Amino acid sequence: MALHVVIMAGGKGERLWPLSREKRPKQLISLDGKSTMLRKTFERISPIVSPSQTYIVTNREILDTVIKEVPEVPRKNILAEPVAKNTAPCIGYAAMVISKDDPRGVMVVLPSDHVIADEQRFRDAISFGVSALDKYPELLITLGMIPNYPETGYGYIALTKRIYKKDSFVLHRVEAFHEKPDRRLAASYIRKGYLWNSGMFMWRVDTILTAFEKHLPKIYKGLKEVLSSKKAGEDNLTKFYEGVDAISIDYGIMEKAKEVAVIPVEFGWNDVGSWDALGRLLPADGKGNTVHGDVVLDDAWNNVAWSTGKKIVLMGVNNTVIVDGEDAILVCPRGRSQDINKLLKKIKQSDL
Amino acid sequence: MALHVVIMAGGKGERLWPLSREKRPKQLISLDGKSTMLRKTFERISPIVSPSQTYIVTNREILDTVIKEVPEVPRKNILAEPVAKNTAPCIGYAAMVISKDDPRGVMVVLPSDHVIADEQRFRDAISFGVSALDKYPELLITLGMIPNYPETGYGYIALTKRIYKKDSFVLHRVEAFHEKPDRRLAASYIRKGYLWNSGMFMWRVDTILTAFEKHLPKIYKGLKEVLSSKKAGEDNLTKFYEGVDAISIDYGIMEKAKEVAVIPVEFGWNDVGSWDALGRLLPADGKGNTVHGDVVLDDAWNNVAWSTGKKIVLMGVNNTVIVDGEDAILVCPRGRSQDINKLLKKIKQSDL
Repeated sequence: MALHVVIMAGGKGERLWPLSREKRPKQLISLDGKSTMLRKTFERISPIVSPSQTYIVTNREILDTVIKEVPEVPRKNILAEPVAKNTAPCIGYAAMVISKDDPRGVMVVLPSDHVIADEQRFRDAISFGVSALDKYPELLITLGMIPNYPETGYGYIALTKRIYKKDSFVLHRVEAFHEKPDRRLAASYIRKGYLWNSGMFMWRVDTILTAFEKHLPKIYKGLKEVLSSKKAGEDNLTKFYEGVDAISIDYGIMEKAKEVAVIPVEFGWNDVGSWDALGRLLPADGKGNTVHGDVVLDDAWNNVAWSTGKKIVLMGVNNTVIVDGEDAILVCPRGRSQDINKLLKKIKQSDL
Repeated sequence: MALHVVIMAGGKGERLWPLSREKRPKQLISLDGKSTMLRKTFERISPIVSPSQTYIVTNREILDTVIKEVPEVPRKNILAEPVAKNTAPCIGYAAMVISKDDPRGVMVVLPSDHVIADEQRFRDAISFGVSALDKYPELLITLGMIPNYPETGYGYIALTKRIYKKDSFVLHRVEAFHEKPDRRLAASYIRKGYLWNSGMFMWRVDTILTAFEKHLPKIYKGLKEVLSSKKAGEDNLTKFYEGVDAISIDYGIMEKAKEVAVIPVEFGWNDVGSWDALGRLLPADGKGNTVHGDVVLDDAWNNVAWSTGKKIVLMGVNNTVIVDGEDAILVCPRGRSQDINKLLKKIKQSDL
C-alpha cells in the first residue's frame, strides 16, 4: 500500500497580514529566515515519502514560486487551482489525480503552513496511521492535537472508544466535531479531553472518493468529468472551479461520514493562524516579548514585534502586536490579531 | 531703530523622531504637507522685517537645505554653527554679527520649529515689544505664553508689576524663571498666573551683548576674537565652538539679569516638542485620533498615527502614538513621547 502525500499550499495569506500577502501567503514565508513553511512541510515528510509520490495543490498566482520552492516534486504533481474554494475541492482534485495511478493507495493531506517541533514523532504518527488503514481501510482518519490551553481559534474533536493501538499511538473513533468555541466552552472541552482539529488527514484514496461520491456528489461528478475529458483540461477545470461551492472537507465530509477516526498526537504543533499564535510559538525574552529583526524594547512587556527592515522602537508598550510589512504596518493588542481577516475584508470593500 | 530677526534653526530633530532625523530635523519637516516649519517661521515674520534683516543660525549638516528653504535671505545672513552648543553661543554669535551693522538695533530671536495659529497677533506682539524697547532700551524681553493647561514639558515665568501698556498688550517685570515642573507644581503655577517660557526673545543688540559680557564673559570674548580676526574665520569659529560650554540663554543670562520683562501673549502657540504636543495641536477625528497619511482605524481611540507612505492599521488600539519614519517605527503610549530623547541616547550608546 503506497503512501502519497498531498500538501495544500493554496492559502491566501490573510492571517499573518501584513507580512503575508496574496502574492506571498503564509506558506511562502520563512519564520526562521532560512526556508519557507512550504519547504519545511515538504522536508518534514520527505524521509517517508518520495517526491514522485508527493503532490502539491496551490493556486495559479503563486504557482511559479511554489515550483521553485520544491524542485524535487515532479511538475505534473503540482496542481494549480484556478479559484480557491476551500479544502473539499482541493482534496477531491488531488485524490482523483492520485487515483489514476494508485486507487487503493494511502493519501495523507497536510496543510503547508503549520509548524511542527518534533518531526520524528509526526512521521511516526503518519506511519501509525498507515498501519491502522491497513487494518481498517474504511476509515477516514484525522490527526487530533492534544491541547494545552483552551484555544478559541480551533475546532475541537470529541473522541470515543479505542479502535486500534500500536506502540505509543492509539486510534479512537470520533464522536463529534465541534466548531470554534467561546472561551468558557473551550475550557469545558479541555476538561472533557477533546482534541484540536489540526486539518491533517489520512485515508485510502478509494475511501475518500467514495465519501465524495456520497456526501459531495456535485464535486465528485464535476471533477470526474474534468479529469476524464481529453481536451482543454485547463478550461474545463476553470469552469468547474468557478461553479463549485466553497466548502471545507470538515463540513462537507468529516462531519457527515460514519467511519471517522482520530489519532491523538502531541508533537509541538502550531498552525500559526495568527500573530498571537506566532507569539506563543516563537521563544520570548524574559519580559515575554517575541521579536523578529531590528526591534528596540524599552519598558516593553509581552509584545509580538516583527520587523522586516525598519527599526521598531517600542517604548512603554505592553501586550501589543506590531508588524512592519512591505507596504503596511499593523498595530493591535495581543488577542485581537485573529480579527485581521474581518478588517481586511472591510478595508477591501470600502477601499479604505 | 531697525528690527532684525534671528531664526534659530540648528535643532537636532530628536523630539519628533523617527520622522525628524539629524539630517532632517523638526524645522525641516512639513506638518501640513506644504511648507517646512522653518519656511513658515520666515513667512510669519516677513511682513514686518525684510529678508536682508533676517538672520538664520543653523548647523553645517543642514546648511544647504536651509539656504534652499529661504532663498530670499542673503547668504551672508545664514550663519552655520560648527557644533551645537545650546542657545547662548548661537544668540551671541548672531548678536555680534548684527552689531557690526546696527549696534543699537532691536533683535528678535525666534525658534524655527514652533507653530503659531494667529500670526497677526504674533506680529503685533513683536511690534509692541519694539515700542517697549524704544522706551526701555535696557530690558531683555521674553514672550510668555498664557497657558491653558498644566504642561510639565515647559519652563514657567512668574511675573510681577506692570511696566508698560499699549493697545491690548502689557509688559511685566519678570519675578523668576521656573524649571519644568511636575504635574502638581504645574497646576499651582497655572493658579498663580505664571506663563509658559516660549524661548522667543527680543532686546537691543547692545543690551544683550552687554549682558553676555557680564554673565557669559568667556562666550563674549571668544566670539569677539573670532569675529574680529581677519584670517581663517571658519577655523577659528570651529575652535571656539569646540571649546565653549553648551549653555542656554535662559540659564546663562535671562535667569541672572536684572532688567528682564515679559509680554504675556496668546496666539495659538505650540512648540511641537513631542508627538503628544503634535497630537494636541492638529485636529482630531470624533474618536480623538490625530492621523496623517494612510491610516486605517478600527475600534481605535485617541491615537496619534503618522504615516509617511505605508498604510498603518490600528485595530483595537487606544491612547497610542505610532509613527512610521523613513527607517524606523515608533510605538509608545500618549504621554510618553517626550521620553524618546532619553531612549535615543541609550540606543546610540549601546548601539541597540
